[in-house]
Amino acid sequence: MQKERLVYLNGDFVPEKEARISIFDSALMFGDMVFEMTRSFNGKQFLLREHLERLYRGIKQLQIPIKEKISEMEALVEKTVEMNKPAFLATDEHRLMINVSRGPLAMYRMVFDGKLEPTVVIADFPVKWTVASLAHFFDDGVHAVTPLQRAIPAQYLEAKIKNRSRMHYMMANLQVSLVDDPNAWALLLDPDGFVAEGTGSNFFIVQAGKLLTPEGRNILRGTRRAYLLNLARRLGIPAEEKNIELYDVIHADEAFFSSAAFSLLPCTRINGLAIGDGKMGPMTKRLLTEWSKEVGVDIVAQTRAFAKEVGDLSGTNIYRFERKNNQ
Amino acid sequence: MQKERLVYLNGDFVPEKEARISIFDSALMFGDMVFEMTRSFNGKQFLLREHLERLYRGIKQLQIPIKEKISEMEALVEKTVEMNKPAFLATDEHRLMINVSRGPLAMYRMVFDGKLEPTVVIADFPVKWTVASLAHFFDDGVHAVTPLQRAIPAQYLEAKIKNRSRMHYMMANLQVSLVDDPNAWALLLDPDGFVAEGTGSNFFIVQAGKLLTPEGRNILRGTRRAYLLNLARRLGIPAEEKNIELYDVIHADEAFFSSAAFSLLPCTRINGLAIGDGKMGPMTKRLLTEWSKEVGVDIVAQTRAFAKEVGDLSGTNIYRFERKNNQ
Amino acid sequence: MQKERLVYLNGDFVPEKEARISIFDSALMFGDMVFEMTRSFNGKQFLLREHLERLYRGIKQLQIPIKEKISEMEALVEKTVEMNKPAFLATDEHRLMINVSRGPLAMYRMVFDGKLEPTVVIADFPVKWTVASLAHFFDDGVHAVTPLQRAIPAQYLEAKIKNRSRMHYMMANLQVSLVDDPNAWALLLDPDGFVAEGTGSNFFIVQAGKLLTPEGRNILRGTRRAYLLNLARRLGIPAEEKNIELYDVIHADEAFFSSAAFSLLPCTRINGLAIGDGKMGPMTKRLLTEWSKEVGVDIVAQTRAFAKEVGDLSGTNIYRFERKNNQ
Amino acid sequence: MQKERLVYLNGDFVPEKEARISIFDSALMFGDMVFEMTRSFNGKQFLLREHLERLYRGIKQLQIPIKEKISEMEALVEKTVEMNKPAFLATDEHRLMINVSRGPLAMYRMVFDGKLEPTVVIADFPVKWTVASLAHFFDDGVHAVTPLQRAIPAQYLEAKIKNRSRMHYMMANLQVSLVDDPNAWALLLDPDGFVAEGTGSNFFIVQAGKLLTPEGRNILRGTRRAYLLNLARRLGIPAEEKNIELYDVIHADEAFFSSAAFSLLPCTRINGLAIGDGKMGPMTKRLLTEWSKEVGVDIVAQTRAFAKEVGDLSGTNIYRFERKNNQ
Amino acid sequence: MQKERLVYLNGDFVPEKEARISIFDSALMFGDMVFEMTRSFNGKQFLLREHLERLYRGIKQLQIPIKEKISEMEALVEKTVEMNKPAFLATDEHRLMINVSRGPLAMYRMVFDGKLEPTVVIADFPVKWTVASLAHFFDDGVHAVTPLQRAIPAQYLEAKIKNRSRMHYMMANLQVSLVDDPNAWALLLDPDGFVAEGTGSNFFIVQAGKLLTPEGRNILRGTRRAYLLNLARRLGIPAEEKNIELYDVIHADEAFFSSAAFSLLPCTRINGLAIGDGKMGPMTKRLLTEWSKEVGVDIVAQTRAFAKEVGDLSGTNIYRFERKNNQ
Amino acid sequence: MQKERLVYLNGDFVPEKEARISIFDSALMFGDMVFEMTRSFNGKQFLLREHLERLYRGIKQLQIPIKEKISEMEALVEKTVEMNKPAFLATDEHRLMINVSRGPLAMYRMVFDGKLEPTVVIADFPVKWTVASLAHFFDDGVHAVTPLQRAIPAQYLEAKIKNRSRMHYMMANLQVSLVDDPNAWALLLDPDGFVAEGTGSNFFIVQAGKLLTPEGRNILRGTRRAYLLNLARRLGIPAEEKNIELYDVIHADEAFFSSAAFSLLPCTRINGLAIGDGKMGPMTKRLLTEWSKEVGVDIVAQTRAFAKEVGDLSGTNIYRFERKNNQ
Repeated sequence: MQKERLVYLNGDFVPEKEARISIFDSALMFGDMVFEMTRSFNGKQFLLREHLERLYRGIKQLQIPIKEKISEMEALVEKTVEMNKPAFLATDEHRLMINVSRGPLAMYRMVFDGKLEPTVVIADFPVKWTVASLAHFFDDGVHAVTPLQRAIPAQYLEAKIKNRSRMHYMMANLQVSLVDDPNAWALLLDPDGFVAEGTGSNFFIVQAGKLLTPEGRNILRGTRRAYLLNLARRLGIPAEEKNIELYDVIHADEAFFSSAAFSLLPCTRINGLAIGDGKMGPMTKRLLTEWSKEVGVDIVAQTRAFAKEVGDLSGTNIYRFERKNNQ
Repeated sequence: MQKERLVYLNGDFVPEKEARISIFDSALMFGDMVFEMTRSFNGKQFLLREHLERLYRGIKQLQIPIKEKISEMEALVEKTVEMNKPAFLATDEHRLMINVSRGPLAMYRMVFDGKLEPTVVIADFPVKWTVASLAHFFDDGVHAVTPLQRAIPAQYLEAKIKNRSRMHYMMANLQVSLVDDPNAWALLLDPDGFVAEGTGSNFFIVQAGKLLTPEGRNILRGTRRAYLLNLARRLGIPAEEKNIELYDVIHADEAFFSSAAFSLLPCTRINGLAIGDGKMGPMTKRLLTEWSKEVGVDIVAQTRAFAKEVGDLSGTNIYRFERKNNQ
Repeated sequence: MQKERLVYLNGDFVPEKEARISIFDSALMFGDMVFEMTRSFNGKQFLLREHLERLYRGIKQLQIPIKEKISEMEALVEKTVEMNKPAFLATDEHRLMINVSRGPLAMYRMVFDGKLEPTVVIADFPVKWTVASLAHFFDDGVHAVTPLQRAIPAQYLEAKIKNRSRMHYMMANLQVSLVDDPNAWALLLDPDGFVAEGTGSNFFIVQAGKLLTPEGRNILRGTRRAYLLNLARRLGIPAEEKNIELYDVIHADEAFFSSAAFSLLPCTRINGLAIGDGKMGPMTKRLLTEWSKEVGVDIVAQTRAFAKEVGDLSGTNIYRFERKNNQ
Repeated sequence: MQKERLVYLNGDFVPEKEARISIFDSALMFGDMVFEMTRSFNGKQFLLREHLERLYRGIKQLQIPIKEKISEMEALVEKTVEMNKPAFLATDEHRLMINVSRGPLAMYRMVFDGKLEPTVVIADFPVKWTVASLAHFFDDGVHAVTPLQRAIPAQYLEAKIKNRSRMHYMMANLQVSLVDDPNAWALLLDPDGFVAEGTGSNFFIVQAGKLLTPEGRNILRGTRRAYLLNLARRLGIPAEEKNIELYDVIHADEAFFSSAAFSLLPCTRINGLAIGDGKMGPMTKRLLTEWSKEVGVDIVAQTRAFAKEVGDLSGTNIYRFERKNNQ
Repeated sequence: MQKERLVYLNGDFVPEKEARISIFDSALMFGDMVFEMTRSFNGKQFLLREHLERLYRGIKQLQIPIKEKISEMEALVEKTVEMNKPAFLATDEHRLMINVSRGPLAMYRMVFDGKLEPTVVIADFPVKWTVASLAHFFDDGVHAVTPLQRAIPAQYLEAKIKNRSRMHYMMANLQVSLVDDPNAWALLLDPDGFVAEGTGSNFFIVQAGKLLTPEGRNILRGTRRAYLLNLARRLGIPAEEKNIELYDVIHADEAFFSSAAFSLLPCTRINGLAIGDGKMGPMTKRLLTEWSKEVGVDIVAQTRAFAKEVGDLSGTNIYRFERKNNQ
Repeated sequence: MQKERLVYLNGDFVPEKEARISIFDSALMFGDMVFEMTRSFNGKQFLLREHLERLYRGIKQLQIPIKEKISEMEALVEKTVEMNKPAFLATDEHRLMINVSRGPLAMYRMVFDGKLEPTVVIADFPVKWTVASLAHFFDDGVHAVTPLQRAIPAQYLEAKIKNRSRMHYMMANLQVSLVDDPNAWALLLDPDGFVAEGTGSNFFIVQAGKLLTPEGRNILRGTRRAYLLNLARRLGIPAEEKNIELYDVIHADEAFFSSAAFSLLPCTRINGLAIGDGKMGPMTKRLLTEWSKEVGVDIVAQTRAFAKEVGDLSGTNIYRFERKNNQ
């Protein structure tokens, strides 16, 4: 790589390592930062507008007084990507992290000479950092485990706002790390016993030819979740949002997780029991294939290439807590 | 002030404005940072050990692999205070903010050349920043308002860990900001309808000569809460942890909030209704007086002096969201 | 007006002011009176049969042993309206209040010389009393506020029976009266966090071209709610009963309240946030226009005319508690 | 009886049969009337002050703007009793019903020529009307039955305010009326499965020598409940408020109901199972005896005398719904 | 009957009376036995495959390590029926009870000389034993009563697994036995207040021409439930799974119970109130008629013939607890 | 051993292997069998009366019409032990399993020639079968893990009745078996997030010198639980029943499980975190020592001797599901 990556930070571009948030920022005091994490296919950001619209719904609801309109934010995003192109390999894809908070609290204005403004951050780093460690799941499948930790009901902490108050995701990951299976990921139920989401991903099952995903209540409504429901319908597959119970997952024909980073990963076991025949199912495959076609990238092949390129992947799987590596 | 304040940050002391956390830190990704905010009386940190023990309970539960033992952390705290003394006025008190997170996620190790370590921050700033805007409440009393937002049950998000996943506090403040009363603060009920806490403070009522505070379940168990229960008992006042309903608050004889920053503030109205005769009550006064004696500082007088010194206080009350100032 | 209004009361017609219920009536002892409040357009009662059917569902469920069949009740209603015609202006519309209870409790039979019978009341008064104070909302829009008070789950107190045990509506109004906005009305959520209803009205949102209203569970199923769903479908607008969250309201394109009295009023803010562009939306307008056509009355114009005619409207808005006027 | 009874009604004394509330009163529109029902022993009102204090707590919480202070209300009560003395037999006791509501709604001010004021009613009738039908329970014991209907959690409808929104009591009575046992009364559990109260009475059990009654949460905190806890303690009996489960009742040694009207009635069966040996237990007897001593009236004997005097008692038991009589 | 009935028990055929399970079996220790109860029409097992598939879903979820595959189990079933034919009258139908548990616990292996294997039982007895006592319900209709006992949420005890942990069914039956009506059966609500199921049967209502049955959440998903939804759709009747409230049942046009044993029985009263006109409704009749046609058996006539044949039926109705017979 | 063990079964004594329950018994149909499992110390049954009293509370609540009074049952128990003495080693202790159900359902009376009676079983086998596999826990400590499965609220399934509807215990064990730690046992929370019990044991923590155990609500109230609370009090240790949260366990000083079989076993980890210093604590030790003294048996030594004697213990730990052995 010939050049270091830069991060947009309130009007400036700073080196990645210097992209930091003041300890006096509301993002840290209240965890009330909204954010988005996107990715490109062939260098083109996928569903960027949908990401930004969700970001702005969070900004509205949290009443963060930023001055940038959504189109200006979009321009900043594009500028950041442009700026960083030299720092990426030709084979790389761009993963953007967009953070917005209301900035330092007024109480601490002395620290900032009275100048307080919302915090806007746009980072751009290679998708491979996130997905390289996940390539083997296309073969192994994710092994979902339902921990004690429940998804928090939206009325207590609004999961539909993509925000930074997510200690419970870490708790779920810590609990599932007790299971000595490197493929185990947390799948959270909500207090009603309905499947909610992974710790950073949405969940789908295939049941008698239908594609089902939990109702958009106590979960983040993922951009890929919407894309997949839409894709399925375009392919003539009945697709529905529905309350899903653990029982439905155990007896489903297929299951998978989706996220902006990895697109789609098969889920082949639930609490130790095989889902269907314990392998990636035909509808999962079909959706992945059609998705690859639509974005012009063989998602599986690309992910595997990333894994090969990166090499040592220990501890980099964000969807699980590895006792050995971190403790 | 002759010298700038410095913040301890992973082994270094950096200027306050430079005290920042990487956007790749788990504290921001998962909101899973634990912290403490202390204060001194006459320059001496009050209940510091209790603060640190709570910090380390959070560190244990979140499995943050820091290398500093509690005594080493205490030494770092003392060093930070020592270092900052020249930057404080003689009349100032020291407010410490201690932050600990597991540091940047392994996924982003490239940003840090593979060097990942937990994040430890100790900031030291004047208590007056926090409390100056609160002086008038000793006269006016806080007007508690119970918003829609509920305290989150501990089993979903452990309130007893002082952590950074607190978007719901901001939500509560946003909701109460609809009430056009500059003295209105949020008082959260939990889903069972029991009083929990303020957005950063504990709550007490006086009922027929008894001091009552909510059971330590869905709340942060404040160091001052424990101190007050203990102080009351030493004064021969029956003091109990008990489920408290809104009804009990409405018909209480007295009520008050407590926190490490402001110690104790009378709460004189609840949802527009006067508590008792609508003024600071005798037991509240007595506890405040005894507390002042024990720490050798007239808490009310000192707070009023801070208010006078600071002057313009608009927007600096952390316990409420001011529409005019922030939006 | 040339003649005083009369109220049907168990076989007699009495002056309005004399229309009273014994303090020994079950309606007061248990709040178990069922009732309906209707209105006319151009003097013709609208959806009267639907009102009476709902009344009789309540009578069945509460096992009130009235002797009048539904057709006899309908005849009594018509007779009451006929009787009162001379007391109404030509421009007036008739608002009926029909009350039915099981009558005085047997325990108090001595008071009534042993003669106990169910209580049936039919009052007829001008619609303008109720709606005149609401005319300005066609311009301003209602500003919904979600108070602490929740809609009571139907299994504890059956909201689908239109009954007189509604202290919680008053509680909700008292709580919202803390918000110093003359346009603020309570919008109740149920304990699951789903939008339920106003304190005497139903609620709708428009989302991506669809008309949505809460499932008919913890709410009164309004006659106008059914009418509007039906009207929308006749107009080719997709219309659905669905669990609606606060999030959905905040990010809806339009919203409105409906009731038998005012028909439909735009809701333009929720907890201080603008819904859509903060004005009455096009679908709301269209539904109101079509409704006006179907009943042959320009609903907005008529309501404004009533407002003009009545003059001083202070304190007469039944959907909110006005601190100044009542306390 | 030489004279008819009179009821105090907003400044006037009217014949009992004329004691009525306008259909436009908030008491009927919202069920938000507070009330008390007292009784005398030997003509002297028992715990009157406690009744009035509870009344005024309700008035405060519902923000009913009455002008009478509590002492003035007490004077009115005394005057009403005085006024009615001639209408009572020497053997009679006085049962007072005190009703307070905010009066007719402003919307209906035309009906009242613009004169709106809170409604205050004080009725005075013989205790025997209420208790005569209950005399046999001193022998038979009440047979408690737990219906589907639950006590409503206080946060949804505040049971501690003695108010008129009590359709759920009627529902509970209707459900229990399916049990073909003339001694069956409803005993309500709350949604957590804890025993709450009867439909107009409190509940106690005796367990290993201790007197236990449900915590004062989802129930009316009866004046007799407080009296009994106090009486027990004065007699050296350990007495406690505690969460009580159905299991505890089934396996209790004794149980009883209390109310202002009947004082105390043994409960000898629960859902068909005998409690203890199925008869009034020794502690129940002792409490009743001591109570009788303290008020100078043999409560059992007096109630039996009332029953004899009244004769036909069919349908007058307010604590149960009798299918035959009412339907 | 010329021959005694035999029961398949782990490879052997034993006399019916000898068909017993060791007290050391997990079925008794944990109640974790799965089972099915089927019936024939004209000697042909109805929906046998569906029964077995449900059985194997339970086996999977409970991780019972049986060696028989589903087809082998089917063969065993057929063999058992074949074997028992001589012991049945020509008019008889076969009711099979298939039980599977993981067998004796390893802790007790000494009792079994170390030989532990899952327990598989297939019994075959006349359908008339179960249904004879139910014939009169085709005329009388079942009178549903909703007891205190709730259906257990699936996340606590999975109702969709047909298992032997059903003490709560017995509790519900015990509670309903207080109602002195020989036709009263328990209808369980779940904790959300939604109708769930009978104690061994599913429930349907007819509402405005639609067939509705509770969502398949906190209930056993009956084979007949699926059959009826399907049958209705084939007949052009709209049929839906939906949350049903007590209110919906009270005001339904028709209602009925279904089970494998009795197929379908009208439900004509709910908590004492007539459903529709209190008789079997036309859609219920039609479904029963079509069902009879499809299986080639007049279900009503056959059941009545069984009743006649059996004679004394006291105490044999499994859906209710009869105080007189059993206690 | 010179003689085979016999089991009391409805009046007869049968060989252990023949101790079986009819598949038509209500115990299997409804899981409504009550039972007790006791043990001796030095051949003397410990707390036998307490066991029998609990048994009879269950019999009462489930309305099982057995004819044996509690004293007769006690005599049967003694006779069974006497009868089996020759079949036990001198070093053995007697473990009794007492089962009572209402017997075969009336529906199946043909199988039993019309003779139906409750089922009463008393088995007597060596304590070592149960406890031998647990000896190593005195050194290793149990590692508690909180699975998804919750304790069922008592109002849905009465945990205080020791009954056979316990599939959820097996579910909890299945879930915890995913954790690859041979010392991991399930510790169930109830839906409120409070610690309930193990799958067949009670739970205690030591906190600042106090002995705490969960309130006796959603748990079996163990005979050893009562004994330990009592023992502690006799030793001057404050001992209390209290709501305990996961947080309290994580930060407790000590913890242990208790049961009739193993008496007391230290719990040294919770969800992978050490409790206290991760070893059996001093108060746990003291209680165990005092208990040993009171019963005249060194409990630890005896258990270790049993383990040595038995040898191969694989799969015999009833408190956990071992994947390898059973699947």
